[in-house]
Amino acid sequence: MSETSTQPGTAQSAAYTPTDRTVPTRSRERAAYDRELVHSILDEGYVCHLGFVRDGAPVVLPTLYGRVGERLYLHGSTGSRPLRMAGQADPGLPVCVTVTHVDGLVLARSAFHHSMNYRSVMVHGVARQVTDPDEKREALDALMDHVVPGRSRDSRPANAKEQAATAVIRLDLDEVSAKLRTGGPNDEPEDLSLPYWTGVLPLAKGYGTPVPAADMAPGIGLPDYLAAL
Amino acid sequence: MSETSTQPGTAQSAAYTPTDRTVPTRSRERAAYDRELVHSILDEGYVCHLGFVRDGAPVVLPTLYGRVGERLYLHGSTGSRPLRMAGQADPGLPVCVTVTHVDGLVLARSAFHHSMNYRSVMVHGVARQVTDPDEKREALDALMDHVVPGRSRDSRPANAKEQAATAVIRLDLDEVSAKLRTGGPNDEPEDLSLPYWTGVLPLAKGYGTPVPAADMAPGIGLPDYLAAL
Repeated sequence: MSETSTQPGTAQSAAYTPTDRTVPTRSRERAAYDRELVHSILDEGYVCHLGFVRDGAPVVLPTLYGRVGERLYLHGSTGSRPLRMAGQADPGLPVCVTVTHVDGLVLARSAFHHSMNYRSVMVHGVARQVTDPDEKREALDALMDHVVPGRSRDSRPANAKEQAATAVIRLDLDEVSAKLRTGGPNDEPEDLSLPYWTGVLPLAKGYGTPVPAADMAPGIGLPDYLAAL
Repeated sequence: MSETSTQPGTAQSAAYTPTDRTVPTRSRERAAYDRELVHSILDEGYVCHLGFVRDGAPVVLPTLYGRVGERLYLHGSTGSRPLRMAGQADPGLPVCVTVTHVDGLVLARSAFHHSMNYRSVMVHGVARQVTDPDEKREALDALMDHVVPGRSRDSRPANAKEQAATAVIRLDLDEVSAKLRTGGPNDEPEDLSLPYWTGVLPLAKGYGTPVPAADMAPGIGLPDYLAAL
């Protein structure tokens, strides 16, 4: 994703400032605040889990997202509950957005030390509806290009009616942390000689073969940006 | 996962009863309540996103889970925030647990109709700490076998100290819904002849080659339950 939308002239430190909410109560060595690391984890995912509070109870919704510099954008129908709530509430809707990649299953000798290798990012903040038309257009392009880089230039842009039917909310990357686990099992010294297979089972993600729609117009080849994936 | 722990003698309907919280405001045709479908989506995942409310604000945590019949189990350190909160609060901690599989990226001719194929399950309810030792042991086995079926019998079981250091919370599958999208793009009739590649880019998940720990005891081959994956 492009960094060009970050406010010009704003000097940024290389890391987010930890807060009470972003410092874990345990396994603190797994927490990280480096901006580049956070961006790379965000940019690798498709779906975030958006948490908000409705009638005092939590709701966790899976949804697509995009990043432009230090802003995260989520979109949905103007009828969607959290997007409506973000538009009505002042100053906005308190949310927590989490993105998680599971990289491997850690099979220790002891049940207790089984774990997973993962990289996750958690963003706390207040989501606001985007009303500026230029920012909204940029956000929607970022959402598409997040899913498939280059796609926004190879599809019909939203018309005025479609733009009006789409709500976009923005969450500034401000109170942010990453959490990671890598490496093999951490068994107790007295368990090392136990006769169990132990190690990591990596989880692989990838793309299948693109399936063209049955009614695609004739003579259209697979575009380079898809062939490259 | 085994169904044997479902309360014996309890007649169950084939579907969960929709509630105000589990009927979406839009895209209702994507919602489903069938128990078997919900179970299959839950059993295919490793990580759920656990939502809870802390100081009035939402928190969304990625964590492993297991299912035993109509109960979902999550575990963590006794020092972990939501697990502690579930133990202290009476009757427990209001949570929302969401599991999501992204199956494909839907590339429509129009930006507006871009979408994703996915299967998700959302569970609303009150999480309670498991204090019964037998239920706790069964839950921890289910958690391990959920990650790798058969693994709980091929590792050292937790000892008393480890059991005491592990908190398990339970969420009954009661207020539950699935949400799914399948199939190709749904473009507007007037867009069908547009010269853009259109269809679905499937996302594939799989396992990499198991990586044994460098200090694994000698002479241990890859167990059948791992070779089968």
